[in-house]
Amino acid sequence: MMMTRKAKATERNILDTGRELVLRKGFVGVGLQEILAASGVPKGSFYHYFASKEAFGHALLQQYIDDYASRLDHLFAEDGGNGRDRLMRYWRAWIEDPELGGWADRCLVVKLAAEVADLSDDLRTVLADGVRRLLDRITGIIERGRADGSIPEGVSAPSTARTLYQMWLGAALLAKLSHTQDPLLQALAATEALLGVTAFPSPPA
Amino acid sequence: MMMTRKAKATERNILDTGRELVLRKGFVGVGLQEILAASGVPKGSFYHYFASKEAFGHALLQQYIDDYASRLDHLFAEDGGNGRDRLMRYWRAWIEDPELGGWADRCLVVKLAAEVADLSDDLRTVLADGVRRLLDRITGIIERGRADGSIPEGVSAPSTARTLYQMWLGAALLAKLSHTQDPLLQALAATEALLGVTAFPSPPA
Repeated sequence: MMMTRKAKATERNILDTGRELVLRKGFVGVGLQEILAASGVPKGSFYHYFASKEAFGHALLQQYIDDYASRLDHLFAEDGGNGRDRLMRYWRAWIEDPELGGWADRCLVVKLAAEVADLSDDLRTVLADGVRRLLDRITGIIERGRADGSIPEGVSAPSTARTLYQMWLGAALLAKLSHTQDPLLQALAATEALLGVTAFPSPPA
Repeated sequence: MMMTRKAKATERNILDTGRELVLRKGFVGVGLQEILAASGVPKGSFYHYFASKEAFGHALLQQYIDDYASRLDHLFAEDGGNGRDRLMRYWRAWIEDPELGGWADRCLVVKLAAEVADLSDDLRTVLADGVRRLLDRITGIIERGRADGSIPEGVSAPSTARTLYQMWLGAALLAKLSHTQDPLLQALAATEALLGVTAFPSPPA
């Protein structure tokens, strides 16, 4: 739909407010009333932008994925460093980003994956597609590191990307659970080690 | 509280019914009415056993942790195999257990960690303590494998246990999200590789 600048600002306000609430309380845990109250938008206006709470969730996840892609563009494009430096800069941002705080703590995959996986096939698919695109980006930066010699040849780049991402997701989950950053520091150390692994055995049949 | 056998059976029925609901819908997503209807227990009776929904959640998580510990006892005690075999038997159970289906798919840490971490400090603590005890068990089986020579010396057993567990948690999250077992098979292959890693660099300060 074509939107005026004001309409776009209102939509963005609802999504930004909603994201903060969802990050703390989950998707099911946030009521529509709460989003309306926090964003100062009347109910009728909300339905002008989103046909349902699920449609709101869809837009929220899509916005998160797009924002995340922009952050990655910025992070990977920054001057300085070879492929490995850029890759490690990304993982370090999970722990601490001067502008955003730790990405792990604000990650909607960590917060919502288990919840939406059984709740809504639409929301699940949006998030799963976002993860797939992210894995492609991580794969690309590993290939770059292989090409410039900063990451040794070894396990295929897509497998390495998936293994690292899975490890960081689990670490982020445990960081939330333990209220410490220890799991993330553990993942950081293991990442360095995994980048030196030269082969994964084939999974047993 | 002292309970008759009948009372214990009723409590167990509420917890078992509740667990199946919570596994699909999360803790916030399951209403008390739904638990009562599914277990066929009247409201007054529910409050005889649990002072609140949070108290019910506490008992649910504690029961899960205790059951999990029994499953581990069984799995690690089974005849046959060295430490490494026993450890790998545990990870394979995440993918497929003939009796229970895959543990990953029925794991309350995967399903609830992100949700309860911000919801209730009591529930968070129960789950975090359960994870800590589980990590001790995994550490123990790795030490056993080191002692019998089936797992090479290398990264400290507690660090190895944490890294593996984090990787499997993230894999289980992505398996839920993607509705495939690929992430778990990836974790299985990476586990074999990680058991051969001889050192993690210290995390950069």
